[in-house]
Amino acid sequence: MFNILSFIETKRDGLHHDEASLKTFVSALLDGRVADYQASAWLMAVYFRGLDDDELRAFTLALADSGRRVHFPPALQPVDKHSTGGVGDKTTLVLVPLVAAAGLPVAKLSGPGLGFTGGTVDKLEAIPNFQSHLPLERFVSQVASIGCAVSGHSLDLAPAEGRFYSLRDVTATVPSVPLIASSIVSKKLAGGAGGFVFDVKCGDGAFMDDLEKARYLARALVDLSRSHGKRSLALVTDMDQPLGRWVGNASEVLEALAVLQGKGPEDTRELCLILGGAMVFLGGRARSLEEGRDLCRRLIDEGKGLEKMEQLLLAQGVSAEVVAAPHRFLPKPSKRWDIRADCSGWLCRLEARAIGEAVKVMGGGRMRKDDAIDPAVSVELHRKRGESIETGDLLMSLHYNDEARLGDGKAFLRRAFTVGEKPQKRPLVLDRIID
Amino acid sequence: MFNILSFIETKRDGLHHDEASLKTFVSALLDGRVADYQASAWLMAVYFRGLDDDELRAFTLALADSGRRVHFPPALQPVDKHSTGGVGDKTTLVLVPLVAAAGLPVAKLSGPGLGFTGGTVDKLEAIPNFQSHLPLERFVSQVASIGCAVSGHSLDLAPAEGRFYSLRDVTATVPSVPLIASSIVSKKLAGGAGGFVFDVKCGDGAFMDDLEKARYLARALVDLSRSHGKRSLALVTDMDQPLGRWVGNASEVLEALAVLQGKGPEDTRELCLILGGAMVFLGGRARSLEEGRDLCRRLIDEGKGLEKMEQLLLAQGVSAEVVAAPHRFLPKPSKRWDIRADCSGWLCRLEARAIGEAVKVMGGGRMRKDDAIDPAVSVELHRKRGESIETGDLLMSLHYNDEARLGDGKAFLRRAFTVGEKPQKRPLVLDRIID
Repeated sequence: MFNILSFIETKRDGLHHDEASLKTFVSALLDGRVADYQASAWLMAVYFRGLDDDELRAFTLALADSGRRVHFPPALQPVDKHSTGGVGDKTTLVLVPLVAAAGLPVAKLSGPGLGFTGGTVDKLEAIPNFQSHLPLERFVSQVASIGCAVSGHSLDLAPAEGRFYSLRDVTATVPSVPLIASSIVSKKLAGGAGGFVFDVKCGDGAFMDDLEKARYLARALVDLSRSHGKRSLALVTDMDQPLGRWVGNASEVLEALAVLQGKGPEDTRELCLILGGAMVFLGGRARSLEEGRDLCRRLIDEGKGLEKMEQLLLAQGVSAEVVAAPHRFLPKPSKRWDIRADCSGWLCRLEARAIGEAVKVMGGGRMRKDDAIDPAVSVELHRKRGESIETGDLLMSLHYNDEARLGDGKAFLRRAFTVGEKPQKRPLVLDRIID
Repeated sequence: MFNILSFIETKRDGLHHDEASLKTFVSALLDGRVADYQASAWLMAVYFRGLDDDELRAFTLALADSGRRVHFPPALQPVDKHSTGGVGDKTTLVLVPLVAAAGLPVAKLSGPGLGFTGGTVDKLEAIPNFQSHLPLERFVSQVASIGCAVSGHSLDLAPAEGRFYSLRDVTATVPSVPLIASSIVSKKLAGGAGGFVFDVKCGDGAFMDDLEKARYLARALVDLSRSHGKRSLALVTDMDQPLGRWVGNASEVLEALAVLQGKGPEDTRELCLILGGAMVFLGGRARSLEEGRDLCRRLIDEGKGLEKMEQLLLAQGVSAEVVAAPHRFLPKPSKRWDIRADCSGWLCRLEARAIGEAVKVMGGGRMRKDDAIDPAVSVELHRKRGESIETGDLLMSLHYNDEARLGDGKAFLRRAFTVGEKPQKRPLVLDRIID
């Protein structure tokens, strides 16, 4: 019989869990034999003791197997991409159609945005009539027919992962590498893709705020994927400042479309090419990362990525009229507040986290799970880190609707930047780990 | 505003809680603003990080102040005695009247037995009509009138301690020295005594199974009491084998009465004299531990301890008829099962824990909080550790009522002893810490 006390003691004392006991533990939490307060004590013990490779593998499998798993036909082994969450990160919106345009199936399941980073589904929901939650059968058949699909996570995929995630969120046990890795990989396994590209964000606008920790997580994700027979590749990328010029759901959709049109800000385009190249390489459509990247660049130049994006939007319920001129139909906020520089120098700090929080408090993100989102809210970054600034230059604009929350939004933005010494240039990709 | 996430993170990261945040945390758990799963994550973090002296003091005070506190008049500053719980430990039953007979008020609040050790209240409840739960006013006035009282803990004393204790019990966070110390001392503070004697049991029949840990706890109890302005004294005593010849509620009452009559087993009598001497010394009725012990011996020899016990029983509802001949009225079990030696040698192991478990599974203790207890169940130890054994000698008898549970009881007793090499003699008192 499963004894939850002995189970917690085992981890508390730094001993080893066998596969069967981890499986029982996960199902016992789901069916109520284990209480939340017992699972949270175990989570904190894991925070201190970690999980060894075998435990991590078994725990991840137990989470993945706790509900339905998506199955794709053998001929259709899609790749999936996961970002640990960054501010202004709209790369998924670019990558799904772009990589599909390279002939590689892309099946993207995405969670809702929580905390100060937005979710891909929240961004797409800014487009009128976009169907963001597809039934699993429809999801699979759309990947088969047009080569890509994006859908919000349905609750019957890895439900135990959801339970643990909610508990971690309220018990200060989020920042544990084995818990983060098992959470991510279990959902990827349940999602049924054949290979994964991980974008591990590093910096103040990310869960992993130092490079060593980010590298460690990247390595853990790749090792854990391999232990489940999945090929993967992890990039550690900079998230000390937001990606691109816009943060906020509707504005990020427009910026992603700009990248697909061969325009858009340099950092966003660059990261999309690197990640897209990695996905194409992983899926066997290129012999190297560099060749994958060149292929993606060409597909953008030829308009193939944009074409695929239009197919995707049409397939998921968006009308032809909206697809033809999305900027005319996406919600626009009624009000605007500007910040200008009150001294000259260089923009040496542009804090992703504070900007993400500003968008969130203005209604562009969720404080609680079931909050509605105002997709129109955005922060426009007129200047990025490293640019030179003159007194009076326009730095940021907050675009918003809700006057009542403006004080909170201003407070975050006012402390989000520093004008001072010229900062060192930081590369976009800090490290990469290839299985 | 109190932020429970930051609070848990503080301890998780090894930082310091201030007094106000600990106080708020304790009250927030009681009023439901903090969930059990959050408190248990914090408890596990404390298991790993500990509490520093200031945190321990403040947490203990917050627990003690979470409900009513007993107040005695200044002229009546009773001493209290606390044992960390041992098998066959009936010393409280002897000490309360014995120390009161020395002219020192004794106010004993006792918790129910949980796990494999029995509680003082459970033992006294084996006596027909004994009123084990006194209203606080009655408790105080009885100490004033006859010099002593014993009562079960009422729920409005340190209620937060009860909440934390229940959570620890089901989350594998019991064996943490600061959590044990704060739990014990908070109840003692709420109980209102002026000084405390702690009997920290050490051995397999105790929570602290090694001497270093037991010493550490003893030191923590004395330091923590001092930080609250209370004098105390801690003894570390042997609990590798049960105390005395009997384990089980009714039988332990009779053994305690035997000690007060100047009879009873040597180890029990000896420990009562040592602890009683310590209480008398702490209360200022003797100039040394040795003098306190001599005083207690004299009070037993003169029958003063027994006399006070009779007063106590009468005051708490027991009839004169029962007081005059308790052995005739205490419940006796109908059945008996003997274990005899199947080889000769020395009794080199007599495991307290297994014997405690045997009594418990036979109905003499609780599996769950609200289980009823069969006070008649007992284990009689015909031989103690270090005695020489011939094949066929009677070692233990199990006295019981419930035939259905006999298999479980036998299983515990069969593995409770070893006949082998002559063991080293172990002293009864392993260490003592005097404030």
